[in-house]
Amino acid sequence: MTLHTDATHDPALRSWVDSANVAGCDFPIQNLPFGRFRAADGGARIGVAIGDQILDLRAAGLAGSDDMNALMAMPPAQRRALRERISQGLAAGSAQQAAWAPALVARAQAEMLLPCRIGDYTDFYTSVHHATNVGRQFRPDNPLLPNYKWVPIGYHGRASSIGVSGARVKRPMGQRKAPDAAAPVLAPCERLDYELELGWFIGQGNAQGAPIAMGEAEQHLFGVALFNDWSARDIQGWEYQPLGPFLSKNFASTLSPWVVTMEALAPFRAPFARPEGDPQPLPYLDSAENRAHGAFSITLEVLLQTARMRAEGIAPVVLSRTDTTRAAYWTPAQLVAHHTVNGCNLQSGDLFGSGTLSGPGETEAGSLLELAAAGQRPVPLPTGERRSFLEDGDTLTLRGWCERAGAVRIGLGEASGTVVG
Amino acid sequence: MTLHTDATHDPALRSWVDSANVAGCDFPIQNLPFGRFRAADGGARIGVAIGDQILDLRAAGLAGSDDMNALMAMPPAQRRALRERISQGLAAGSAQQAAWAPALVARAQAEMLLPCRIGDYTDFYTSVHHATNVGRQFRPDNPLLPNYKWVPIGYHGRASSIGVSGARVKRPMGQRKAPDAAAPVLAPCERLDYELELGWFIGQGNAQGAPIAMGEAEQHLFGVALFNDWSARDIQGWEYQPLGPFLSKNFASTLSPWVVTMEALAPFRAPFARPEGDPQPLPYLDSAENRAHGAFSITLEVLLQTARMRAEGIAPVVLSRTDTTRAAYWTPAQLVAHHTVNGCNLQSGDLFGSGTLSGPGETEAGSLLELAAAGQRPVPLPTGERRSFLEDGDTLTLRGWCERAGAVRIGLGEASGTVVG
Repeated sequence: MTLHTDATHDPALRSWVDSANVAGCDFPIQNLPFGRFRAADGGARIGVAIGDQILDLRAAGLAGSDDMNALMAMPPAQRRALRERISQGLAAGSAQQAAWAPALVARAQAEMLLPCRIGDYTDFYTSVHHATNVGRQFRPDNPLLPNYKWVPIGYHGRASSIGVSGARVKRPMGQRKAPDAAAPVLAPCERLDYELELGWFIGQGNAQGAPIAMGEAEQHLFGVALFNDWSARDIQGWEYQPLGPFLSKNFASTLSPWVVTMEALAPFRAPFARPEGDPQPLPYLDSAENRAHGAFSITLEVLLQTARMRAEGIAPVVLSRTDTTRAAYWTPAQLVAHHTVNGCNLQSGDLFGSGTLSGPGETEAGSLLELAAAGQRPVPLPTGERRSFLEDGDTLTLRGWCERAGAVRIGLGEASGTVVG
Repeated sequence: MTLHTDATHDPALRSWVDSANVAGCDFPIQNLPFGRFRAADGGARIGVAIGDQILDLRAAGLAGSDDMNALMAMPPAQRRALRERISQGLAAGSAQQAAWAPALVARAQAEMLLPCRIGDYTDFYTSVHHATNVGRQFRPDNPLLPNYKWVPIGYHGRASSIGVSGARVKRPMGQRKAPDAAAPVLAPCERLDYELELGWFIGQGNAQGAPIAMGEAEQHLFGVALFNDWSARDIQGWEYQPLGPFLSKNFASTLSPWVVTMEALAPFRAPFARPEGDPQPLPYLDSAENRAHGAFSITLEVLLQTARMRAEGIAPVVLSRTDTTRAAYWTPAQLVAHHTVNGCNLQSGDLFGSGTLSGPGETEAGSLLELAAAGQRPVPLPTGERRSFLEDGDTLTLRGWCERAGAVRIGLGEASGTVVG
């Protein structure tokens, strides 16, 4: 857990894949995220994104199997060695160029799949701003509960309905009850929302009964992707007590296809600190390294394009933008330490949703529920349309990137989905 | 969804496996539950319990693979045909006896494994008595929430930490806060509890976006096992708001190894009715068949043996006993219809916990929290010991069986676990 950056981060490093050298590119040679794509034989193949291409790891002789979960389970040192081999082979002037060039697949032509088999998916609630904003909607008298600043609140989500960017998300049916109605009704959701999240993937797991201490926690993280936790607010409001959200969330979630590794994120580490007056984390959630470098600065952006905007040739508009360091009350390492302190076993490929990453400002909120103040302040769009919640035909896209003076910008790509009726 | 019972239920049917014909046996030829055991080569093998033996399906030429999830995914008609072949082959006088006898493995010698790969595990809350009892502990002013009688309340649980009977369950660490304390502490759980549940397994899945209607719901169920949802009540009380239980539950759950199929349960169907004055289920949770036969009568029993009882040769004592028809407010078919009404996709091998099956009486409660009234009425034991919560060395065992005049009793076996410090 240090700011150490190795040769793979050298800002002067360029690739023989020309598109990787274009300024502003999400996937320069300093990034090298992992994903899975559909091979010509129909199977899943592991690839690394480089510019507008994918390096097929099997074709390049870098992977013996197509099992991403096995790759994620590698000890970090072995994973770093693989990253270095890929970096050296893709670098301009590499002796590998002739051998690897035929292993490139155009990203535009590739069908991307989920990055791995997700055994268990946990969703956290790491933005205190989101917790307060949403708490105000559901419990006006009691927005932020007393446990929030002590416990990294989380709950289990549904793994089977997680899909990859490009999804068509069907508006769910569900029970809802108007405050003055005698009985609930089953009807299509009328308050469909998105949630801007990061999805952290587990690398090496732990045995049941063997907690992971803070000092080891990051060794168990593999990397990060964008994650949209689609939410049906009317269903949620009626069903969520006392055991938490269920059908309001589990109809669909959408991941970006490329997992940016912890190694690629190293130059974008940031200190972690509690706001003045807030309690310090309990010792099992605290370490000097975490305070020094436990956070990551990732800029996150939400874009919306309605069907009418698409028809009129109007580009997606930015609904909000924030940075994880402004939004997250807990670091990824703290989530790992908390999740396992009771002996719960994590497995390679498990996914931790960050929870909605809303920053403190009004334009930094990670959901429409917050941006439109539960329908009281609908968001105006360039067509004259307004949105309090998502409508059929709306395409919602999450984007994320890291930039810092002295480092090459890297991107997370995008997680996009279109609502259908 | 009928009371139809076929030749496999014939009470006169006896097996050439003598131990299956002993009165009171859990696994007579009318049962034929599926499970997985460790084969001599270390792999997982599918078997069917018969008396004190296991029929190895591969060795008997009945299964081409050892993939229980694939077996669970078979269309119900194909599954029933397999059951009939097994029944005929194990029946006294069968021509298969000579060929199948070498495919028997003694149950006492076999290491049992989880019955299948559990992709997603959902825990419901189907006992209105449990919901009321527990609600009273956590929310004295508001024990049963307004949604309870309309929504089959459920939430996602942790699949990775589900183990099989015989488990050693390590007492979890966790955050808890005394009501008058300024801050929480991390400490070993002091209010460790069990929960008496059934675990319903999904057979055929559904596609995302394609709800399963009530009329089809039971076609998607494979069978049932006993399930102990170990619970840390002190951790639960502090962490569970607003998103539900998390670390208080996910450190361990324990399943019985044998899945009793829907076909074997057929003679034990029961009508489903709402108590006088309660709302009728919404149409998507209602059907004439469900009202006529949607429930199942399964007797459930909880036994406790402390380390001292074991040392003194005192047999386990029964803590409680109830019947699912007295405890469950929703039928398994209703759980399937509800879980998928929003388009959520189920997969073969998914597990639905029933939630704690407490009946209405004081001796019918499915947790110590209820039996001992949250510590106000500790349960006396024959050694003079008392229990408000579980202590290290306690062995907790769930048992279940079905009996009815005119049918042969079948059992679910047991789900047992011992608490270790």
